[in-house]
Amino acid sequence: MSRRLVLAAAQMGPIQKAEGRDVAVGRMVRLMETAHRRGAEVVVFPELALTTFFPRWYHEDLAEADHWYETALPSNATAPLFEAARKFNIGFHLGYAERTPDGHRFNTAVYVHPSGEVVLKYRKVHLPGHAEYEPTRTVQHLEKRYFEVGNLGFPVVRAPVGETSVNIGMMICNDRRWPEAWRVLGLQQVELVMLGYNTPSLNMENRGFEAHHLRVFHSHLSIQAGCYQNACFAAGVAKAGDEDGHELFGHSIIVNPQGEIMAQATSWGDELIVADCDLGMCALGRSTIFNFEKHRRTEAYGRITAQTGSVAPPEWRPGER
Amino acid sequence: MSRRLVLAAAQMGPIQKAEGRDVAVGRMVRLMETAHRRGAEVVVFPELALTTFFPRWYHEDLAEADHWYETALPSNATAPLFEAARKFNIGFHLGYAERTPDGHRFNTAVYVHPSGEVVLKYRKVHLPGHAEYEPTRTVQHLEKRYFEVGNLGFPVVRAPVGETSVNIGMMICNDRRWPEAWRVLGLQQVELVMLGYNTPSLNMENRGFEAHHLRVFHSHLSIQAGCYQNACFAAGVAKAGDEDGHELFGHSIIVNPQGEIMAQATSWGDELIVADCDLGMCALGRSTIFNFEKHRRTEAYGRITAQTGSVAPPEWRPGER
Repeated sequence: MSRRLVLAAAQMGPIQKAEGRDVAVGRMVRLMETAHRRGAEVVVFPELALTTFFPRWYHEDLAEADHWYETALPSNATAPLFEAARKFNIGFHLGYAERTPDGHRFNTAVYVHPSGEVVLKYRKVHLPGHAEYEPTRTVQHLEKRYFEVGNLGFPVVRAPVGETSVNIGMMICNDRRWPEAWRVLGLQQVELVMLGYNTPSLNMENRGFEAHHLRVFHSHLSIQAGCYQNACFAAGVAKAGDEDGHELFGHSIIVNPQGEIMAQATSWGDELIVADCDLGMCALGRSTIFNFEKHRRTEAYGRITAQTGSVAPPEWRPGER
Repeated sequence: MSRRLVLAAAQMGPIQKAEGRDVAVGRMVRLMETAHRRGAEVVVFPELALTTFFPRWYHEDLAEADHWYETALPSNATAPLFEAARKFNIGFHLGYAERTPDGHRFNTAVYVHPSGEVVLKYRKVHLPGHAEYEPTRTVQHLEKRYFEVGNLGFPVVRAPVGETSVNIGMMICNDRRWPEAWRVLGLQQVELVMLGYNTPSLNMENRGFEAHHLRVFHSHLSIQAGCYQNACFAAGVAKAGDEDGHELFGHSIIVNPQGEIMAQATSWGDELIVADCDLGMCALGRSTIFNFEKHRRTEAYGRITAQTGSVAPPEWRPGER
């Protein structure tokens, strides 16, 4: 029997700083309704989907930023998402800023079963940017200020998604550029990676080498390679458009285990893309070219876990061997 | 002062089983001459560049395959390559089958300085295929029979290439699909990866998912992602065309640290492609988005070196947290 999943990626247009969660949640419920009409069994929303991408705003006192974080899920503001999940019998992935009861702050994502139960939680490991205000930067990127490094690793769980059970895992935004993140999920037989992002269209700190048009290419390249090399599907989902004067790119995609793009958003607004995923495809790579047990050579990989930064290589001198 | 390197990738057309090394070496010398006329300072030749891709032929007795291996470099047969290097003041990368004095067999590559000295040697780590004759296969792929797993790791050395010093590293064929190989080189600040391959155009063991036209895409995807994520250049160089009735794809490429293809071979024969590489580009990725020291989180990567094969994830049960 073939295992199939109708997967939806719900790209969102911008959320302005002045807008409350009710505006975003209302739009998300409409996207879930659309997903239901398109026959989707799961909807993937972006990173920090309830608010503007607030790490671009500096606060000296972290407490002044507290209103950007969720302290409970569901809350009054997010309850309509859980109601819609039940009503439409559809699971959803949500990215949000999490503040724990004991005061820790994470960039977090959850997968919620249609029953409203949280199946899987992930906290972002690869935080880009910086922790202190940088006066030379045109735009601040303060993720290292507002979030701690995720402390849950890269968990995978086998859970009911639609009518089948699927090995699900997550990444958030910058994680997608790190092959280590993909591989840790692949080593747990992940079949579907849910991945939200907020990525600026322009590299404001450009030092002359990275053409702006390459930014979408780099995002797709990383996701496509990750899917191919780990024989999994992914939904890479953007918050896009002009957010408080700062442009985020869209081009959300659903990718198959061959690294092919199955569906792509082409607007900068709220847009639903859907793909019919044959989960049997994951088995091909996993049992042939990427049969890890047969082909991986961990004795040659030591540096990956033994050292964090890079080291300069030795210099060759003629006559030496 | 900008550090530049004029890099040539010398794709080779097929080498038939019946052809001697003199035929291949003659063609390679002509390619080196062309490279010299195009201003190249280094030429990268493919994997197993001196003979047909012999692992497709089965021998019960390994000794019957001994004539495919080199026992010394240079030898009478390969001396013309070393002479051409000196004459044209051009370094070269060569892939060949190596048999050591004590009887070990490796799929090997070397970088040879114009002086004729071997600067760097690498022995292929990720051997694809199988060790025993498989009667159900249309074509045998006996690399695991004819070669031992490389025992040199993924070494990088800083060496004179052209008019500057370059951090050079190597991969061979199937290695390019493994992000671990790229990362181990990246952790040693590799700037140029030399990479030869022999890859069939058709997946004869296809089980219904992999369209043949995706095979070049997968090769390019892996190389482009590896270069982007490790901020390095690569020359991915094919032996291409119909070799003893078995088709190998070409599409050799030179890729920059942004993952962009700078040059691409479009024939299935001997073809030289050249690119002018600004090695300063490597510093951008390495000091920003891929500043490993700042952003890598080795505590989350444990599985990459701790386990070889994948493991099934735990099953979620409602009501459990």
